[in-house]
Amino acid sequence: MFTALSHLYCPRCGATADAFVRQGLCRSCGSPLLARYDLSSVPIRRSALADRAPDLWRYHELLPVSSPEHVVTLGEGMTPLLAVPRLAAALGLERLWIKDEGLLPTGSFKARGAAVGVSRARELGIRAMAMPTNGNAGAAWSAYAARAGLEMLVAMPVDAPTITRVETVAAGGRLVLVDGLISDAGRLVSAAVADTEWFDVGTLKEPYRIEGKKTMGFELAEQLGWRMPDVVVHPTGGGVGLIGIVKGLMELLGLGWLEGPLPRMVCVQAAGCAPIVRAFQAGAGSCEAWPDARTVAFGITVPKPLGDFLVLSALNETAGTAVAVTDAELLADVALVGRLEGLFLCPEGAATVAAVRALVSSGWISSDEEVVLLNTGSGLIYPGTVPVDAPRIAADGEFHLPPAESQ
Amino acid sequence: MFTALSHLYCPRCGATADAFVRQGLCRSCGSPLLARYDLSSVPIRRSALADRAPDLWRYHELLPVSSPEHVVTLGEGMTPLLAVPRLAAALGLERLWIKDEGLLPTGSFKARGAAVGVSRARELGIRAMAMPTNGNAGAAWSAYAARAGLEMLVAMPVDAPTITRVETVAAGGRLVLVDGLISDAGRLVSAAVADTEWFDVGTLKEPYRIEGKKTMGFELAEQLGWRMPDVVVHPTGGGVGLIGIVKGLMELLGLGWLEGPLPRMVCVQAAGCAPIVRAFQAGAGSCEAWPDARTVAFGITVPKPLGDFLVLSALNETAGTAVAVTDAELLADVALVGRLEGLFLCPEGAATVAAVRALVSSGWISSDEEVVLLNTGSGLIYPGTVPVDAPRIAADGEFHLPPAESQ
Repeated sequence: MFTALSHLYCPRCGATADAFVRQGLCRSCGSPLLARYDLSSVPIRRSALADRAPDLWRYHELLPVSSPEHVVTLGEGMTPLLAVPRLAAALGLERLWIKDEGLLPTGSFKARGAAVGVSRARELGIRAMAMPTNGNAGAAWSAYAARAGLEMLVAMPVDAPTITRVETVAAGGRLVLVDGLISDAGRLVSAAVADTEWFDVGTLKEPYRIEGKKTMGFELAEQLGWRMPDVVVHPTGGGVGLIGIVKGLMELLGLGWLEGPLPRMVCVQAAGCAPIVRAFQAGAGSCEAWPDARTVAFGITVPKPLGDFLVLSALNETAGTAVAVTDAELLADVALVGRLEGLFLCPEGAATVAAVRALVSSGWISSDEEVVLLNTGSGLIYPGTVPVDAPRIAADGEFHLPPAESQ
Repeated sequence: MFTALSHLYCPRCGATADAFVRQGLCRSCGSPLLARYDLSSVPIRRSALADRAPDLWRYHELLPVSSPEHVVTLGEGMTPLLAVPRLAAALGLERLWIKDEGLLPTGSFKARGAAVGVSRARELGIRAMAMPTNGNAGAAWSAYAARAGLEMLVAMPVDAPTITRVETVAAGGRLVLVDGLISDAGRLVSAAVADTEWFDVGTLKEPYRIEGKKTMGFELAEQLGWRMPDVVVHPTGGGVGLIGIVKGLMELLGLGWLEGPLPRMVCVQAAGCAPIVRAFQAGAGSCEAWPDARTVAFGITVPKPLGDFLVLSALNETAGTAVAVTDAELLADVALVGRLEGLFLCPEGAATVAAVRALVSSGWISSDEEVVLLNTGSGLIYPGTVPVDAPRIAADGEFHLPPAESQ
């Protein structure tokens, strides 16, 4: 048995749907659909994973692909979980980890969703896909679509990171630039795919991207020796990473591979686009669209996520919280983490550092708690976050070195 | 026992040197020094590796670091070895693999050398290091130096990829830009470190960078199930990757973990800077400096590598060869591999594709041989290799999709 996939269900209205034909949103209520597995049929113990390759397909029984020949892979998964003791000390913590998703194919955690989403799309006979994106998802889905021999169209705001345009085109994806935000791109894509064979694979518009993302939770548990940390801090735009991690951990609990309680989940947004933070603070079950959204952490510029109610529910169920940080704070933390730990975080990843500082300061996180930060992408994608001011010397010139000082 | 390191030896004059104090070049003849291990003392079988984490430190007995607490890591190693069947068909091959080194920390294979080199430097009490670089090595060494709490100075040609400046500075490295080539930067660094505490860690100026690079050979053998391919194709500037792979495979032969013959090694250079190709074709034992060196594959713009004689000897000992490809060829192959396999190669990595095409065409590689290409870095570092021409649409505009066509 390659997958224990059983059926799809609607987390809003409770309807169920066939997981073995292509599906979009819930036909009853328009909510995203989620995959459910027959956990009692999973034939392995967690110790069996040790013999499998270090990629996310090691968890294939808990992924939606029915047959190994439909797996589309670029070697994604088992990203490092790095102890960061000097950053921990700077934040007043004893046990701090960064899971570095920048080491995935295409440079961001979007590769997880793309690997699983494209594999399942091909398995279900889909030949052409389209999506709105803030850049990284479009780059990732274009790469996996090329690897699978499928067509991909990506609609991206003109302000998205320039390199993600290049990644999309390098993989043969069709690229459309939009004078607007991801919400505008989403409307354009919805209209364009209507009555065509093109399949809309926008965030949570199909059920399988999140199945790739949940493997962050699987890896985290396995890398910690099958236990959970106290707190997991995740930058949040569409929210699939955060709800994916909770879904993954719940499945491991269901299998008996882990014991509770779940980590308290922290949703981090930019002060310039914080609809989930505002809704969480108001005790609301869903978001209002954020007007004039704007942040250097471009990946999380999502004014009104489709899965907002799932993120809010995950925060409430795990006794979590939501924090907004300013661009100035997160840019300072790109530099701080580079200097202390040698890690070049993406701005979204650096936002988690600023959030933890605030939560330690407020007492919400105590110094003896174990905290995991998700760095969702490589700093290489955001060359503008660090100013460079270096002397320029002639080929036959010279320069002098100061006395060496160990830090 | 954490390491089986025994001593250093000079591959040119045969002198030996103490591996447990800091060493630069051979004091007798000025050649690079290489590390030798007491293979008979390695206490494990290769099967024991399966229980170790998927990073390059799984081979710690064959690495030069004496004590685990001196390991400086960002999670480097065990990069994917990807079957690329559509590219294989396009090149007329049956079994073709790409080892994707773009998924390492800092985005290139330079992370391997930096991880091991910085770890050993710290262990030997070095506090400050300096190097010339074509960009990627400087970025990598700056990151690992920051992680280790050491000082790093990087001298880089102004034409090196811009993002590597950012990576260097983000990690707190001191950056000097040089109006010239890496050879000019090397002279400047040599002069600046003289009579200071700063340690010159330029290519092969110290013995341990290559120890990190040789783990590409270890991983390749392990990932293929402890056997060797017929041909390994490597882009070559300083040459450390190519000679490192051969050194690694020789050590595995010595341990009895592999059986011969060694793969035929192919050194790939750009037509605009091909000193090793010229020397190989002339049957020479070392290179002449290449005048007016110039290529978009900037990482391999090395007019006169210090380890030239080691590369030439590795090519001769493995019945290998050396091939130069034009910038137009390698740029076309960046696009080809993106479209066929979804991989965004660096231009140096794409040069291996162009080289294989030529070698298949000439009959040097036959269609039934198993070939491995090294993609030494991420395409993210070289955003200029793929032109982007995309329509721009208003937020309230529309676009239309063509009929879907599976490729």
